[in-house]
Amino acid sequence: MRRRSLQHDEQGRLRHLLTIEGLKRAQIVDILDTAESFISVGEQKVRKVPLLRGKTVVNLFFEASTRTLTTFELAAKRLSADVLKININTSATVKGESLLDMLHNLEAMQCDMFVVRHADSGAAHLIARHVAPHVSVINAGDGSHAHPTQALLDMLTIRRRKGEFAPLTVAIVGDIMHSRVARSQIHALTTLGVSELRVVAPKTLIPAAVESLGVHVCHDLDEGLRDADVVIMLRLQKERMQGALLPSEGEYFAHFGLTEERLAVAKPDAIVMHPGPINRGVEIASSVADGPQSVILEQVSNGIAVRMAVMSMTLGRPPADTAEVQAG
Amino acid sequence: MRRRSLQHDEQGRLRHLLTIEGLKRAQIVDILDTAESFISVGEQKVRKVPLLRGKTVVNLFFEASTRTLTTFELAAKRLSADVLKININTSATVKGESLLDMLHNLEAMQCDMFVVRHADSGAAHLIARHVAPHVSVINAGDGSHAHPTQALLDMLTIRRRKGEFAPLTVAIVGDIMHSRVARSQIHALTTLGVSELRVVAPKTLIPAAVESLGVHVCHDLDEGLRDADVVIMLRLQKERMQGALLPSEGEYFAHFGLTEERLAVAKPDAIVMHPGPINRGVEIASSVADGPQSVILEQVSNGIAVRMAVMSMTLGRPPADTAEVQAG
Amino acid sequence: MRRRSLQHDEQGRLRHLLTIEGLKRAQIVDILDTAESFISVGEQKVRKVPLLRGKTVVNLFFEASTRTLTTFELAAKRLSADVLKININTSATVKGESLLDMLHNLEAMQCDMFVVRHADSGAAHLIARHVAPHVSVINAGDGSHAHPTQALLDMLTIRRRKGEFAPLTVAIVGDIMHSRVARSQIHALTTLGVSELRVVAPKTLIPAAVESLGVHVCHDLDEGLRDADVVIMLRLQKERMQGALLPSEGEYFAHFGLTEERLAVAKPDAIVMHPGPINRGVEIASSVADGPQSVILEQVSNGIAVRMAVMSMTLGRPPADTAEVQAG
Repeated sequence: MRRRSLQHDEQGRLRHLLTIEGLKRAQIVDILDTAESFISVGEQKVRKVPLLRGKTVVNLFFEASTRTLTTFELAAKRLSADVLKININTSATVKGESLLDMLHNLEAMQCDMFVVRHADSGAAHLIARHVAPHVSVINAGDGSHAHPTQALLDMLTIRRRKGEFAPLTVAIVGDIMHSRVARSQIHALTTLGVSELRVVAPKTLIPAAVESLGVHVCHDLDEGLRDADVVIMLRLQKERMQGALLPSEGEYFAHFGLTEERLAVAKPDAIVMHPGPINRGVEIASSVADGPQSVILEQVSNGIAVRMAVMSMTLGRPPADTAEVQAG
Repeated sequence: MRRRSLQHDEQGRLRHLLTIEGLKRAQIVDILDTAESFISVGEQKVRKVPLLRGKTVVNLFFEASTRTLTTFELAAKRLSADVLKININTSATVKGESLLDMLHNLEAMQCDMFVVRHADSGAAHLIARHVAPHVSVINAGDGSHAHPTQALLDMLTIRRRKGEFAPLTVAIVGDIMHSRVARSQIHALTTLGVSELRVVAPKTLIPAAVESLGVHVCHDLDEGLRDADVVIMLRLQKERMQGALLPSEGEYFAHFGLTEERLAVAKPDAIVMHPGPINRGVEIASSVADGPQSVILEQVSNGIAVRMAVMSMTLGRPPADTAEVQAG
Repeated sequence: MRRRSLQHDEQGRLRHLLTIEGLKRAQIVDILDTAESFISVGEQKVRKVPLLRGKTVVNLFFEASTRTLTTFELAAKRLSADVLKININTSATVKGESLLDMLHNLEAMQCDMFVVRHADSGAAHLIARHVAPHVSVINAGDGSHAHPTQALLDMLTIRRRKGEFAPLTVAIVGDIMHSRVARSQIHALTTLGVSELRVVAPKTLIPAAVESLGVHVCHDLDEGLRDADVVIMLRLQKERMQGALLPSEGEYFAHFGLTEERLAVAKPDAIVMHPGPINRGVEIASSVADGPQSVILEQVSNGIAVRMAVMSMTLGRPPADTAEVQAG
């Protein structure tokens, strides 16, 4: 019998998607292949498939979000699921026990999936540990921990543009320290086996033992971008500016902002990515964001396909083969 | 010809559901039987039936609610209705006339059902008196007056657990005075003919002439619970604490909170119910709420089925048989 | 080849609906005829047609609205489209560039239509100039500029009641200066060729060169209403009262409020219209608003049909006939 993790069922199939960490290469490729098949759905005249008809997806967003919430809502609707958006009064703290009561109530209403975004790292794991057997949990971003569907849509975007991961040099530029996106990307890119993975940031925005994850640390943008195939810019949270971590927007842009000039040291066919929403003139120049090497809007389109893939794979699993489980 | 009430049409069929008071035993049983058939819908893989396809259900919640609003939304969607949630600015008072203008506008948009929750007793009746002939109104709780779908889901839960109502001793414990849930439960349980119905509360939380409804009043929890088959705990509204009606949460729990010890005087197979959301440690101990005799989450599941039943029975009525009406 | 405008495609078909200005008579009649066919959908038992199944309609309301938002939502759902409501934080200014980023993101998510309401005149045009080729934009009201679907539903209401436009005398009464509704009605009524079109208001509420649009200006209500076939009352924005433009609600009503007595000078079969929501006792007496000549609620019903027509005509266009375009 296969070793079990919280996000896999007894047969090793994906039940929840909480983090990229611990996913096998074959499983990531499987998600990307499934997402690929949903891209054609987006290009059809009728963008709707009946895979999750009669299923109920609940968006539990404890942290404000427009883009991620919208893409999950659209992905669920295009799979023909019913979608519920729970108004969470962010002013009143939702405490541990009453959160669980709320979850158990939603389960009793035969809801099938919780898409969870929360400011606390580990929130989606906590919820996944307590849900009923028929429920799947998708982590839509928890604190500075993980944002697995973002990393997967990034991998899909890279694969559609570059084909193979093995020969690639990838640079992730920006606030690595506080970024759940970067954390999930690092796990995905190392599992898929890129040739070289660099993180590029000022010293104050690099987490302590990041090299143990298999990345090279650069504090100089030109060095980080040199001959890169893929450049991933991270959004700079403006609130970091107010602390001691960073001097000013202008100074940050001068050192780590991506301009056409800086981008010129990367490979000529390098692609530029960003999880959005972009801060024009803070971490990226408009001419680059809107330029020919930018694939930022392709990432958004691929995000719908990846979320459809993850939702249909977790919720649409055929019932476990009891015989095999008993034999395991 | 049958005598007409506001909530029945000319043929005596349910048009609105405003209150349990005045419903005949056969009509309550009919709703429970219909709800029973919808429980299987909740257990199917595709939880969707096309009964209300093309109908529009409007949730008019003038009072905040997550659970009841969500169950009505889910019930309507599982019947394939379109659901509209009207944002009612609770800060601006919606005055009599402008409320009616809003209703007439929604009717002109061919909306078919208003699900109404309002802090004022009688609000759903007022609306039902003014709607167009094609519109049905469901009372989702009005002031301290009535909450008929809650009482019906409680009856369904009791019937599924206990079979017959006739032999049962039922205790309703808590703030009877201010509870629309208790009022509707009392009407349902006396109409269905339970053997004994007790209300258990401190003197300050018992309404004046409650005995005229056919209930026994107890001011002692042990006495109220003795040999009960069904124990219904009510939610204690915290704002009552601030008035003169109650001493403190701790003292209330000591006298009227349900613990495993107190529950032991009821029948060994007694079931424990609560309309939710529960105040753990105020009216009920966690060990009881989560314990083997609790059917609190079953109530939530049954709530979807009951609301599907009420919506489909009121909206899905075939056109009135004119001949019969003329003959009446 | 036909001359192109922003709201028409290469074949002269309606791609966006931004303003009535510039629409040909035949095109307006075409929309009204299509809307007529959707009125029967509203009267069916199953009020749903699959014309826009798999399409995604986004409601982008930068200005508060319940009625218009609700009718667009219902119209889209009855066409079987998926509907997305974007929560726009009205407190944070959405600036030019970030607005475009939001639009491009929604396009990348394969959204097909933006229904735009905005306090700034020209907002819908701005958006239409920047959207991707597969996207249609509907103006749901921009500043004091245009509200084309309101004017079209008014035309449908007039045509259903009066048949022909040519013999009609129409009076528009109220704040012509600030009214996008009046502006769009004037363009529609002059294009459809009514016999006489009057605008009736105090001097402070009449725009400077309004006569150049082909209307007669009256400052006296009796004169404006005399022998009119159609009386259109405008909503008086209460904030105008606080400026120097108007004396008081009472004085306004005395001079320009529509009462049964004032209405008596119009033709005996004159119809009374109002875009809603009505201010009872400010611009219109309740006895008139609810009286036998009022068609205010018919306007609301016709609004659903007109919006279904406009949505299905713009989004449901078959692909352009390339041969014809090349030949043009």
